[in-house]
Amino acid sequence: MKAAIIGTTGYGGGELIRILANHPFFDIHSIHTTRDEKSLSDEYPHLTGIFEKVLTKIDTEKIAEEADVVFLATPSKVSGKLVDSFFREDIKVIDLSGDMRLKEPDSYKAWYGHEPVGDSILAEAVYGLSEWNREEIKSARLLANPGCYPTAALLGLAPLMAEKLVDPGSIIIDAKSGVSGAGRSPSMGTLYAELNENFKIYKVNEHQHIPEIEQQLSLWNGEDVKVTFSTHLIPVTRGIMATMYVKLQEELDTLRLIDLYEETYNGHPFIRVRKNGVFPSVKEVKGSNFCDIGLHADKRTGRVTIVSVIDNLMKGAAGQAVQNANIMYGLEETAGLEMIPLYP
Amino acid sequence: MKAAIIGTTGYGGGELIRILANHPFFDIHSIHTTRDEKSLSDEYPHLTGIFEKVLTKIDTEKIAEEADVVFLATPSKVSGKLVDSFFREDIKVIDLSGDMRLKEPDSYKAWYGHEPVGDSILAEAVYGLSEWNREEIKSARLLANPGCYPTAALLGLAPLMAEKLVDPGSIIIDAKSGVSGAGRSPSMGTLYAELNENFKIYKVNEHQHIPEIEQQLSLWNGEDVKVTFSTHLIPVTRGIMATMYVKLQEELDTLRLIDLYEETYNGHPFIRVRKNGVFPSVKEVKGSNFCDIGLHADKRTGRVTIVSVIDNLMKGAAGQAVQNANIMYGLEETAGLEMIPLYP
Amino acid sequence: MKAAIIGTTGYGGGELIRILANHPFFDIHSIHTTRDEKSLSDEYPHLTGIFEKVLTKIDTEKIAEEADVVFLATPSKVSGKLVDSFFREDIKVIDLSGDMRLKEPDSYKAWYGHEPVGDSILAEAVYGLSEWNREEIKSARLLANPGCYPTAALLGLAPLMAEKLVDPGSIIIDAKSGVSGAGRSPSMGTLYAELNENFKIYKVNEHQHIPEIEQQLSLWNGEDVKVTFSTHLIPVTRGIMATMYVKLQEELDTLRLIDLYEETYNGHPFIRVRKNGVFPSVKEVKGSNFCDIGLHADKRTGRVTIVSVIDNLMKGAAGQAVQNANIMYGLEETAGLEMIPLYP
Amino acid sequence: MKAAIIGTTGYGGGELIRILANHPFFDIHSIHTTRDEKSLSDEYPHLTGIFEKVLTKIDTEKIAEEADVVFLATPSKVSGKLVDSFFREDIKVIDLSGDMRLKEPDSYKAWYGHEPVGDSILAEAVYGLSEWNREEIKSARLLANPGCYPTAALLGLAPLMAEKLVDPGSIIIDAKSGVSGAGRSPSMGTLYAELNENFKIYKVNEHQHIPEIEQQLSLWNGEDVKVTFSTHLIPVTRGIMATMYVKLQEELDTLRLIDLYEETYNGHPFIRVRKNGVFPSVKEVKGSNFCDIGLHADKRTGRVTIVSVIDNLMKGAAGQAVQNANIMYGLEETAGLEMIPLYP
Repeated sequence: MKAAIIGTTGYGGGELIRILANHPFFDIHSIHTTRDEKSLSDEYPHLTGIFEKVLTKIDTEKIAEEADVVFLATPSKVSGKLVDSFFREDIKVIDLSGDMRLKEPDSYKAWYGHEPVGDSILAEAVYGLSEWNREEIKSARLLANPGCYPTAALLGLAPLMAEKLVDPGSIIIDAKSGVSGAGRSPSMGTLYAELNENFKIYKVNEHQHIPEIEQQLSLWNGEDVKVTFSTHLIPVTRGIMATMYVKLQEELDTLRLIDLYEETYNGHPFIRVRKNGVFPSVKEVKGSNFCDIGLHADKRTGRVTIVSVIDNLMKGAAGQAVQNANIMYGLEETAGLEMIPLYP
Repeated sequence: MKAAIIGTTGYGGGELIRILANHPFFDIHSIHTTRDEKSLSDEYPHLTGIFEKVLTKIDTEKIAEEADVVFLATPSKVSGKLVDSFFREDIKVIDLSGDMRLKEPDSYKAWYGHEPVGDSILAEAVYGLSEWNREEIKSARLLANPGCYPTAALLGLAPLMAEKLVDPGSIIIDAKSGVSGAGRSPSMGTLYAELNENFKIYKVNEHQHIPEIEQQLSLWNGEDVKVTFSTHLIPVTRGIMATMYVKLQEELDTLRLIDLYEETYNGHPFIRVRKNGVFPSVKEVKGSNFCDIGLHADKRTGRVTIVSVIDNLMKGAAGQAVQNANIMYGLEETAGLEMIPLYP
Repeated sequence: MKAAIIGTTGYGGGELIRILANHPFFDIHSIHTTRDEKSLSDEYPHLTGIFEKVLTKIDTEKIAEEADVVFLATPSKVSGKLVDSFFREDIKVIDLSGDMRLKEPDSYKAWYGHEPVGDSILAEAVYGLSEWNREEIKSARLLANPGCYPTAALLGLAPLMAEKLVDPGSIIIDAKSGVSGAGRSPSMGTLYAELNENFKIYKVNEHQHIPEIEQQLSLWNGEDVKVTFSTHLIPVTRGIMATMYVKLQEELDTLRLIDLYEETYNGHPFIRVRKNGVFPSVKEVKGSNFCDIGLHADKRTGRVTIVSVIDNLMKGAAGQAVQNANIMYGLEETAGLEMIPLYP
Repeated sequence: MKAAIIGTTGYGGGELIRILANHPFFDIHSIHTTRDEKSLSDEYPHLTGIFEKVLTKIDTEKIAEEADVVFLATPSKVSGKLVDSFFREDIKVIDLSGDMRLKEPDSYKAWYGHEPVGDSILAEAVYGLSEWNREEIKSARLLANPGCYPTAALLGLAPLMAEKLVDPGSIIIDAKSGVSGAGRSPSMGTLYAELNENFKIYKVNEHQHIPEIEQQLSLWNGEDVKVTFSTHLIPVTRGIMATMYVKLQEELDTLRLIDLYEETYNGHPFIRVRKNGVFPSVKEVKGSNFCDIGLHADKRTGRVTIVSVIDNLMKGAAGQAVQNANIMYGLEETAGLEMIPLYP
């Protein structure tokens, strides 16, 4: 299968290259940029001798003609326009931005601050939370790849939510992300000297991933769910940890929680549930497509603490995008994604 | 005033040296260790030429005879024994460990796992949360310096708790600390290669600072308070952020919250309340004794998010210890503590 | 004495604020920027409550009228123009850029790539390597504050060069700097995600500090000296280490070298020479104005290894600038500069 | 082919697992430790679900009977004893320590400080600098895998040395390493709080890799070579950069140097020579087996600067060990080693 990648020079695009360049079934047919046409290895010297294709301008017709699937590693708004161009073409689209994730156009407008894509696109777009939406993904033509924070949060909450075990008003998600999530565009706030030896909270109660999380939680819960959601910047390049706090509708101890999670995720190769008393750290998934989960029920307070970690560029972006592409093409879900975490 | 320091080679002890070596009123009379007698600058070469005293063994009688105040920068259990030795001597004791903080011996035993100090010591020990206990601190002879996490959490919650505005069952404290809090003893878990590019959660619902936080919150609240409290390791050397979530008994918007905090902390030079929409980051207090606080009331969920940051070695340990010593001796609270945060 | 600071929002300017805000003799009269007029604490929230002056536009006449000394923490070229404006005014100028350092206009043009300041300015400018030019600095009106790399390299080489003990063709300087030296302007190369877990070499044999180092070494040596000079970026915020390799004209063992350095720097409070077998690390000077030096003569190869470390924002920029200001005004050289290194 | 690994819990052992667990021809038959017998994933949770073998005690006879090749990822001295045990058995040995690298027993004793292995072992051991010793490696039974620093330095110097183009008395190697090279045993010097925001020089002119580098350079040069060699700790987990300075016997400009290197390394898939004006950084090889090289001839000083970077755990240890195993078994040199660098 021939893949085209748009937005290749960002970190998400670079990670797609790392995965697809060694993928057994996908072939990177072309790479595109709105910036200068040059060899990608001039932009990313670590690819020297490994991947030497030249970046070209975005010609949607030509791409649709030549490629089977296009990955949009472009920012919100840019993706929306591209989806629009590709919509009537015969090509599958996997969009890593937030532009097709929210089913409510008004919600998109409120949280993203610009115009949503058209209703027909939203109607056809499938939300690609791979472990929970496999059937729909199989036949998707437009795939909305989940956000990094929503992936970590939803995979951690899903087994309890899907069983309607959570008090829907009790959910607090305290999320922490590595800096690569902020992208490769220069900005003062992401300079080394600003973030090193630092830890910041940002977009308090205002992050655009809030409606994405709530939309999926509400689907599972059957009624409207609101969450308190905080995002912090960790001085690491890769990694997200979501520390989550919920009250349950009935009491479950830690062992029963772990059982429930293990059963739920049985057969899902990228989800690893930790043993009682053990919690994952972000480095334990670095460079891999795993989502690792730890759990604890606190008898003193009646709250459950759920810890979920992913590599934001992998399971939180490019990795899950390829996992979804694998599902869409009926391949093994793990094809091209068997990287072992890089530790230490 | 002559000060003696015990446990000088740890990070807390080193920070006491940094402060007291330039303090206008305290003089470091002697420094002590259970390890080798040598010049402190052999252990800490950054002190070369600045502070060249020699470490000597701990002779409590001699120390009590010669010094006016002794700082115990020793670990829990070691501090307890030393407090016991100094108890009947004519010397003020400022203990940076947890050994005199919990008024309930059973609670101490349950959370710390060893025997508490005697009841008469606990009865006399004053909890040194400087901004909230100034009057008692003034006449204290035994001072229990607060833990690093409790300092950040309590200063952030206090204005609401003291006004009984918080639903006492709603408190969640998601705390993150730099690594210096783990001390200078070698351990695999705090090696550079383990923590760099990592972010860990530890002691989930089991941290010994939980009862310390709850004891003070219960005092303010008038009845028993239980909190959900998580601790994480950030890959930075210094800094704590406590992100806290509470429900209020009555609705207050962000501006009124900020007003309340500014009024409450008016006249307290080390507390800085951020403006609406602005939150502190840990580097903004690095190397200083400040506690910076940011607030947001979320209308969607009815929860308030409180962010409190300190330098764990300063306001979370040595800085607050010296602030308390200043209070005990009737000095300006800021004496010797006017360091500007080291940014970037 | 009243000081004005231009270029306050950069890291060098910020460090001048940190020093001068607590300086016993200088008063920060005004701060200036080419950007928005706003409170400096809006740009640097760590200054909240400590230093609340408002940034104003640069009005050289007004500044010259009101202030006694102006610190230019502006980039090369901008400084040159400002020096020009201030030249005929009755005000002392301390320039942290490279615009007045090179006595040869052609050399400046070749290495900096734009026009030098006028000859009369160059003739009057004094090179502010404090420990080696104290007499001239005392009466300077225009002070060219040394570059960060030259400060580390020259202080490390000086005792041997001044005694003409070095084979002038043998000098190799392998220098490593923290990232704050690159300034606060956004650029892709200094993003956190690019530099974290990285180590880069840059401007190989092309750094504009080469002629500055060679100019001073040639002065000491009496004839033309050329050096091999490499610069690397360390993933730390602050700190420079220059590792230097020289051949001597006569054999000296390590102990005699250390003696020579101790004698040479006797009475210079900011230079600390390490004992035999001990070498400084960059964190041992962090936040302070020290330059720490370690030495080793290798019998196997006949080469001497000299290691010199500074904090690039302190002794490498703002710290030395204030040290020079102290000398210019006949103050204690250490006034306002007694910060103890922040360790760990 | 069945592989046994001894010393699996260290970082070098962990990296062997990462490579061999996905290797197309080697099968990890058994893993061994001198410590507790437990599942490796209890020690390294990132391996959960990927590699779940149990660590067992070292029974050399059993290992020799069952496995085809044994990798010793054990420290110097421990390796020596194990090599001794395996010497008369029918098994190939690849030792990652320094115990079989030095052909001169006296040199080993002088630099390592303990007894060398026997002469017959040294006589049979082949030095595994893959790109330069391929023929001998093919038939090796005892393989001495090169040290991390020597690998970076030698691959960078080799094309010039092998052509006898270097003035043998002019070689200076200023090397910088990530912290994983120091291993996983707890020590104060490698704690996070000690190394973060730090940069250290260590073992000045005393590193045990000096004789290893000199032995190989002398072989190429035909006569005795001595080098000045410095080692520094960079605050990164992985990565070595060797910045090297040499004088040539005849003048070569940068372009001719690059030509020479490209020709020399043509057909060697793991060596990448950068273009004129471009230098590699350590993150460009992270997690991969590449050695990237940049070059510059400086007309001003007549010196050549050579920059060579590797991942110390890959090309500097486990990666090269597997590359050597591939050669020993006649496989493609790149088998199991096609990881793309993890960037950012």
